[in-house]
Amino acid sequence: MKKRSPMRIGFQGELGAFSQQAIRQLLGLKAEPIAHQRFDQVFAALDAGKLDAAVIPLENSLAGSVHENYDLLLKYRAEITAETSVRVIHNLIAPPGVSFRAIRKVYSHPVALNQCLDFFGSHARIERTPFYDTAGSVKMIMEDRPADGAAIASELAAKIYGAHILKRGIEDDRQNFTRFFMLEPAGAKPRTVRGAGKRPWKTSLVFSIRNIPGALFRSLGALALRDINLVKIESRPLRGKPWEYLFYLDLWGHREDQVVRNALNHLGELADFLRVLGSYRAA
Amino acid sequence: MKKRSPMRIGFQGELGAFSQQAIRQLLGLKAEPIAHQRFDQVFAALDAGKLDAAVIPLENSLAGSVHENYDLLLKYRAEITAETSVRVIHNLIAPPGVSFRAIRKVYSHPVALNQCLDFFGSHARIERTPFYDTAGSVKMIMEDRPADGAAIASELAAKIYGAHILKRGIEDDRQNFTRFFMLEPAGAKPRTVRGAGKRPWKTSLVFSIRNIPGALFRSLGALALRDINLVKIESRPLRGKPWEYLFYLDLWGHREDQVVRNALNHLGELADFLRVLGSYRAA
Repeated sequence: MKKRSPMRIGFQGELGAFSQQAIRQLLGLKAEPIAHQRFDQVFAALDAGKLDAAVIPLENSLAGSVHENYDLLLKYRAEITAETSVRVIHNLIAPPGVSFRAIRKVYSHPVALNQCLDFFGSHARIERTPFYDTAGSVKMIMEDRPADGAAIASELAAKIYGAHILKRGIEDDRQNFTRFFMLEPAGAKPRTVRGAGKRPWKTSLVFSIRNIPGALFRSLGALALRDINLVKIESRPLRGKPWEYLFYLDLWGHREDQVVRNALNHLGELADFLRVLGSYRAA
Repeated sequence: MKKRSPMRIGFQGELGAFSQQAIRQLLGLKAEPIAHQRFDQVFAALDAGKLDAAVIPLENSLAGSVHENYDLLLKYRAEITAETSVRVIHNLIAPPGVSFRAIRKVYSHPVALNQCLDFFGSHARIERTPFYDTAGSVKMIMEDRPADGAAIASELAAKIYGAHILKRGIEDDRQNFTRFFMLEPAGAKPRTVRGAGKRPWKTSLVFSIRNIPGALFRSLGALALRDINLVKIESRPLRGKPWEYLFYLDLWGHREDQVVRNALNHLGELADFLRVLGSYRAA
């Protein structure tokens, strides 16, 4: 019997990246994560039919929205079909046999190093050494085996490269979450993700309105007057059009719910541009 | 005659950082930039009276809002008194005497390296080498003088450390702007910034409302029904309170304008929490 080929799921980063953890949360171990260097390459590969789906970060609780990916959502026609939230936990990771006392240099992405300043503050002998990628720094110490070197990355990266966790959760702020979307080709039947069950529906959309006083107020009226609640709203200047704005908006409900359809029709009357990016179960 | 001591202006990063360029745009060369490692240290120093003002980034056109600094604006009592926008231009920078043909390694912050992928794509012999800081990478190549090394940073960093620009504007996307705020102690008489002239006033505020359907709609009504226009709005979940949200909002007008005062009073009736962060001339 021919073995069914695994789902190919695109992401940006090295194996062991937090995006890969998001893929596992959504699809378990049956999915094959396909690493890409850049976000636009992930979108292009999905668009070209080389991937079954893609998983990309949209927002971090400390760093804010990833505008590049919102732009790419607009540029390509993929649809959001699921979301998940990954708690970003930074671990101190070393090759087997290297003890904490031996560590003098710690490699990681500067953003990760900067999120562990309390740790470095209380271990002055340890030097922060910037590296290209969190998971990539684990791969590097496992290949080069410096006697005094460690990395900061996810638990998954430690597992993938066979390294040991010396200290868990050394990040300064535990309220560090990243929200990921799963994208599938527009019109495809969305695949089932783990634990979606009975969680409520969310719908993400983007629209633009002319910058006249009250324009956003009236647009939100299309939802509020129907008792549809917002989850998130964010405005962004339209490139090259200084007086126009895009709004990214998440609401509770499914695009096929009658009340949501009515609200979207109403919003369409007011907006210069409106696109529904997808409906999916809340994480 | 005693020489007047220069204004001490705090920022985060190394000398030559884009924040220092923002300080120059706002205050010219009469201000003394005081470097800090972390944003919270900048806010704490301003709060403790060790600085006359601080200049911090709030938003990048590609990367989005800097939520950490919005949080710090809430935590401390400083007031926004000016804004400016810096075009982020990445330059290839080397020590004097090093030619472009000699370059094999380029050092910079990974975010900057990632914003110059077209350059690296067309010069495959050059290796991207992550470093802690853009301006810091210029400082390093001027101290260590590698024969084949260059850095990516601002023109200002090249000037400060006496390095040469080999190639200007090697960033992939020219729509790369960062918006900075100048902060001064609450209640202080705001100092005059360059070119503020007759530019229109903006006011920034933050408020929270309970997550009931239509709550944001009614809140925006306080502005819309008075023909006050929005510049920007962004929602953010309140930490530890999953059903409550903070909204960051910029509007056109000064907090002392009668119509804005009325709107703020009205908004105060609807919001659980409201704070005006400052009124300032638009950049």
